[in-house]
Amino acid sequence: MALKMTIEDMHRFLADVFPAVCDIFEVQAMSEEEITVRMKVSERDIRPGGTVSGPTMFTLADVSYYLATLSHIGPKALTVTTSCAIDFMRKPAATDLIAKARVLKLGKVLSVGDVMIYSVGMDKPVAHANLTYSIPKG
Amino acid sequence: MALKMTIEDMHRFLADVFPAVCDIFEVQAMSEEEITVRMKVSERDIRPGGTVSGPTMFTLADVSYYLATLSHIGPKALTVTTSCAIDFMRKPAATDLIAKARVLKLGKVLSVGDVMIYSVGMDKPVAHANLTYSIPKG
Amino acid sequence: MALKMTIEDMHRFLADVFPAVCDIFEVQAMSEEEITVRMKVSERDIRPGGTVSGPTMFTLADVSYYLATLSHIGPKALTVTTSCAIDFMRKPAATDLIAKARVLKLGKVLSVGDVMIYSVGMDKPVAHANLTYSIPKG
Amino acid sequence: MALKMTIEDMHRFLADVFPAVCDIFEVQAMSEEEITVRMKVSERDIRPGGTVSGPTMFTLADVSYYLATLSHIGPKALTVTTSCAIDFMRKPAATDLIAKARVLKLGKVLSVGDVMIYSVGMDKPVAHANLTYSIPKG
Repeated sequence: MALKMTIEDMHRFLADVFPAVCDIFEVQAMSEEEITVRMKVSERDIRPGGTVSGPTMFTLADVSYYLATLSHIGPKALTVTTSCAIDFMRKPAATDLIAKARVLKLGKVLSVGDVMIYSVGMDKPVAHANLTYSIPKG
Repeated sequence: MALKMTIEDMHRFLADVFPAVCDIFEVQAMSEEEITVRMKVSERDIRPGGTVSGPTMFTLADVSYYLATLSHIGPKALTVTTSCAIDFMRKPAATDLIAKARVLKLGKVLSVGDVMIYSVGMDKPVAHANLTYSIPKG
Repeated sequence: MALKMTIEDMHRFLADVFPAVCDIFEVQAMSEEEITVRMKVSERDIRPGGTVSGPTMFTLADVSYYLATLSHIGPKALTVTTSCAIDFMRKPAATDLIAKARVLKLGKVLSVGDVMIYSVGMDKPVAHANLTYSIPKG
Repeated sequence: MALKMTIEDMHRFLADVFPAVCDIFEVQAMSEEEITVRMKVSERDIRPGGTVSGPTMFTLADVSYYLATLSHIGPKALTVTTSCAIDFMRKPAATDLIAKARVLKLGKVLSVGDVMIYSVGMDKPVAHANLTYSIPKG
């Protein structure tokens, strides 16, 4: 599974297709096994008690797995989430999040894998998600 | 499982605890079996191709199940999502969403149930989620 | 979604394709919306404390959703489970199980739906599963 | 998280509590990070086409995560599965299965983690499951 995109390709793709959010996500590392994505957490992601909201973590899981899949198949914007099973395990700190996503099975129709989410400055993961994406033909 | 809150209680609770988002969600109906929540979809929830983003649907599933649980246990703000398995089944229209959430098991520690999500004007559901919430003591 | 098989077709199909287990499962009712399947629980499904094992409930969820899908697409034996998210909610009694399965989305490639599992003699469900099956071409 | 049981303790525990199945499962390796469990696949686990059934893989995921949790909390037989989200990714060979389970979060009430399942002789995983177990008090 040689990579079809570089980190620069990824950032250019995000700026083209998702201009509204491209400043929030930064691809920090990318290999055949894993992609690392950092998410800028802002005021509106924070919940009472100084933690990050579940939907914010879901968004990062979803975007990271999307990028992990594209790194293997190239910039097919219409690749869409089919399902996600996410476990929220620890209360995140009120700070940026880091995701590590890996593709476990790349088929013709489906991409299946998982994402581990960390709070910057914490060793142990805050959430873990299994995702399936549907890959458009052609 | 008699209800512990009215629709008015719900709206007051949302305004107190989540002032930033309370205008987005409206509880439309509530019974012992089911709660119906409407979500205002805005520009930033829309994706290229005129559809609603996955994280927006996740947010609605999460909020609806939170409110479904609170309707049975009262306004315990610290009730938190433990896990969510969501299937995205159809492309939603670029319009408001409706969720129907039901509690299937209310234990001392966990609340387990599901949420069906519809696009206003479409008969068939666009997404279906199973959620578990952890209930704080006391 | 008119049905493509009758209850008799189902039982004949099970006897042909899964002779080892066809005596365990009985389709009790079938409509466009829902299929009801009863599972004979035997000694080896029982766990210490007089309850039914998790794998037994998973097996029923899997078989019921398979049959629900076949009722809509006809007897395509090679239809296979892609994913399952199951919540175990209550301790089942040491007795037979009943499943009610419904197809929520039937696409060309995937069938997505859920299954509610009951213990005979108990009102409230013991488990709830969301399943996705992959449908073979042709 | 120092281990509370040895491999010998595990096998003795299985023989005591699950005499009917203890010959099927063998703990091959165990560390603070991961437990490796081999499952003997027999005739009745095989499906037409020479593959292993979904319920057999679920059973291995369930047992492996149970043992992974017990390795950290000691032999509490009443620890029970709360939920499982499993993705079936590749057709397994008609041979024994290997599971690698890891605990990602061990709380007072819940143990959350995942299991990767392999077919003996295949490099890539055939299934991946996220599980949550409820831990009894005392």
